[in-house]
Amino acid sequence: MAASAQIKFCNLCGRGVTQKIPPGDNRQRYVCDHCGEIQYQNPKIVTGCIPVWQDRVLLCRRAIEPRYGYWTVPAGFMENGESVQQGAARETMEEACAPVTDVSLYGIYNLPHISQVYMLFRARLESEAGYGVGEESLETALFLEQDIPWDKMAFRVVSAALKRFFIERQTNQFTVEVTDIV
Amino acid sequence: MAASAQIKFCNLCGRGVTQKIPPGDNRQRYVCDHCGEIQYQNPKIVTGCIPVWQDRVLLCRRAIEPRYGYWTVPAGFMENGESVQQGAARETMEEACAPVTDVSLYGIYNLPHISQVYMLFRARLESEAGYGVGEESLETALFLEQDIPWDKMAFRVVSAALKRFFIERQTNQFTVEVTDIV
Repeated sequence: MAASAQIKFCNLCGRGVTQKIPPGDNRQRYVCDHCGEIQYQNPKIVTGCIPVWQDRVLLCRRAIEPRYGYWTVPAGFMENGESVQQGAARETMEEACAPVTDVSLYGIYNLPHISQVYMLFRARLESEAGYGVGEESLETALFLEQDIPWDKMAFRVVSAALKRFFIERQTNQFTVEVTDIV
Repeated sequence: MAASAQIKFCNLCGRGVTQKIPPGDNRQRYVCDHCGEIQYQNPKIVTGCIPVWQDRVLLCRRAIEPRYGYWTVPAGFMENGESVQQGAARETMEEACAPVTDVSLYGIYNLPHISQVYMLFRARLESEAGYGVGEESLETALFLEQDIPWDKMAFRVVSAALKRFFIERQTNQFTVEVTDIV
């Protein structure tokens, strides 16, 4: 996790690092005492989808911590070399074995206390039966709005986005939300 | 830079790392041979503003590489502990000494070849004279559309966003663009 990562040694030369403000910078970084390499730490992007099939959405019950056993949408850390949308689709494939198309931005959520930015997309499931159970899921299922296990959802940000989704779906007028989760 | 970062030693214990696929993962990571710590590398967010004063926008002429001497909007790497909008406003303060308000999402640009995501916002300059020249800028100035030095712009993605801005400004109907820059 970006916010809590410990850095004691230099990635380049293996010697010890010290926290200091490098020349031309204005904040403390871990800097190598030997080779001078600056070990930057930056926020990470979590990217995910609301996979939609007609009037239902695909949810996954988590087989990993945090929030083991609770429901959420497929999402995870964005990887190098991909786009945010590709990352959202990849996570949907990994966690729910579900190919998706029409990946559209739906929300950006700042989580500054853990140095993450959560980017959520709407996406279309390619077929009604086109999903399964990935390694990080206990089960997956398509839910109508009234069947969503609201009291067993893993993350409030996802519950709020799903509620917005079902309201906006009535008129097919989808907005993009940008907000902070503190 | 995220895509090209070299990792030879473990940040936690200083011993050598080897590229391998950790258990439960599906891609090569740098893993410590001694303590097993996984040295993840993830995309970085570059965040910036188009600072607007009435019918003019604030641009900075770069005092740093890449594209030294060329013009762009204030932008830079997002830092831990801030929101994307705070990062965009902070960069505007650092590079153009300009406080901004009303920071609204305007574009998300995937740069998968360098493992960056560029997030661009519109923002309102607090006053007409409320800007200066930050350490990473040679000069800064407010430009009307017809005065923008289009042939001296540092980055095509910024030129494209500014062109879209001036078109959309005519009707005050601003969109959010999500696209790949390859």
